[in-house]
Amino acid sequence: MATKLTQDELKKMVGYKAVDDHVKSGMVVGLGTGSTAYFAVERVGQKLASGELKDIVAIPTSIRTKEQAESLNIPLVTLDTHSRLDVAIDGADLVDPALNLVKGGGGALFREKIVEASADKFIVIVDQSKIVDALGPAFPLPIECLPFCIEHTMRNLEALPAMQGAKAVLRRGSSANNKVDGEEIAISDNNCYLVDMHFDEPIKDPVALADQINKVVGTVEHGLFVGMTTSVIIAGEDGITVKDA
Amino acid sequence: MATKLTQDELKKMVGYKAVDDHVKSGMVVGLGTGSTAYFAVERVGQKLASGELKDIVAIPTSIRTKEQAESLNIPLVTLDTHSRLDVAIDGADLVDPALNLVKGGGGALFREKIVEASADKFIVIVDQSKIVDALGPAFPLPIECLPFCIEHTMRNLEALPAMQGAKAVLRRGSSANNKVDGEEIAISDNNCYLVDMHFDEPIKDPVALADQINKVVGTVEHGLFVGMTTSVIIAGEDGITVKDA
Repeated sequence: MATKLTQDELKKMVGYKAVDDHVKSGMVVGLGTGSTAYFAVERVGQKLASGELKDIVAIPTSIRTKEQAESLNIPLVTLDTHSRLDVAIDGADLVDPALNLVKGGGGALFREKIVEASADKFIVIVDQSKIVDALGPAFPLPIECLPFCIEHTMRNLEALPAMQGAKAVLRRGSSANNKVDGEEIAISDNNCYLVDMHFDEPIKDPVALADQINKVVGTVEHGLFVGMTTSVIIAGEDGITVKDA
Repeated sequence: MATKLTQDELKKMVGYKAVDDHVKSGMVVGLGTGSTAYFAVERVGQKLASGELKDIVAIPTSIRTKEQAESLNIPLVTLDTHSRLDVAIDGADLVDPALNLVKGGGGALFREKIVEASADKFIVIVDQSKIVDALGPAFPLPIECLPFCIEHTMRNLEALPAMQGAKAVLRRGSSANNKVDGEEIAISDNNCYLVDMHFDEPIKDPVALADQINKVVGTVEHGLFVGMTTSVIIAGEDGITVKDA
């Protein structure tokens, strides 16, 4: 009988596989943020150190990932000098059957989206618990908003037809990365607020919802990643599965 | 022979007419920003002082307008308490035959748009020089952007199909309201940057362009006001004309 793998072992498996399958020497690589992406960054560092990978430059999606990459001597660049990436690898909070994602529970959604939208291939690494029949109730949808008249913007978001009556909650805590409720309003890397939309029902049309959110004056970016995913690598108790878009 | 009116007299005529025709007692009124909107604010103050208007509350679109309104004892509220306005009155940098606008030369485009998008009626007041056959070459299109990787965002904006090869120029000067070139990057009220898009040719499809800009990761808001205008009041040498949408 096989020993059951721990959550961390599963995350490591998909993080390593994403790098082994998709990162080749000479590439510009986007490095995601979070406990699963952590292992992909670790693997890139290992393979650069061993010489198995050469001439890699990477773009991190958060300060945290930047620090991890620097500690592993991964050469870093920015979108200002490298506007196209060969591949980006990151986790997700939810994945639907069309490989649309909800991301941004950790508060890094803007940097993740600007990097991953610039990648030729976007590889998503998750454990089985993130796979859902539909986006919505299982995880709130984060929306980054300008602080000016935030209550007005929250009402406008709640009123969008494709929002289906979801409730807007202003994220609190000492920072955007801190999901623990606190007195203070959480502030993103862009000095913006984060509004979490809580759904009672599955989101019927994520593409329409993304479009409607983009048009609300006062929103900066949102955690719906639609039509961006190339492949999802999923760690389950029975092993690893891959779904391609 | 009639004496030719000065530019200021023309601006005053349309500013006053907008208030006389569209502002009634009990209304929530959006107050625009700029040298033409100045006279509309002045008129609201006059009519409140004389008692001709009562129970008006107003929402200003800039610090400057807020200060003018306060000096005239116009009661002010915000979108947080009043999410719907009866009418908003403001100037524009360009007006096309479909009454689409370019606004934001003064750097206040975000607050103007969030207020004016919430108004049941949006009255635009301009002199004849702002009326064009097509938006584009006559005045650069301002786009408010997050500072993070601004060069990348500028390249993405230039690459939009509906942008028709327009050139992106980062606005400089001591503040967003200062159009004089300076060493420093201009900073908006939202602590963002302003990118001015310079067109060689008329914009063929302002609606498609607005939609494409909304989808660029890193943009906050833009100076295309499409499908928002109720009426334009135009001051020309031959008098005032009104165009309804």
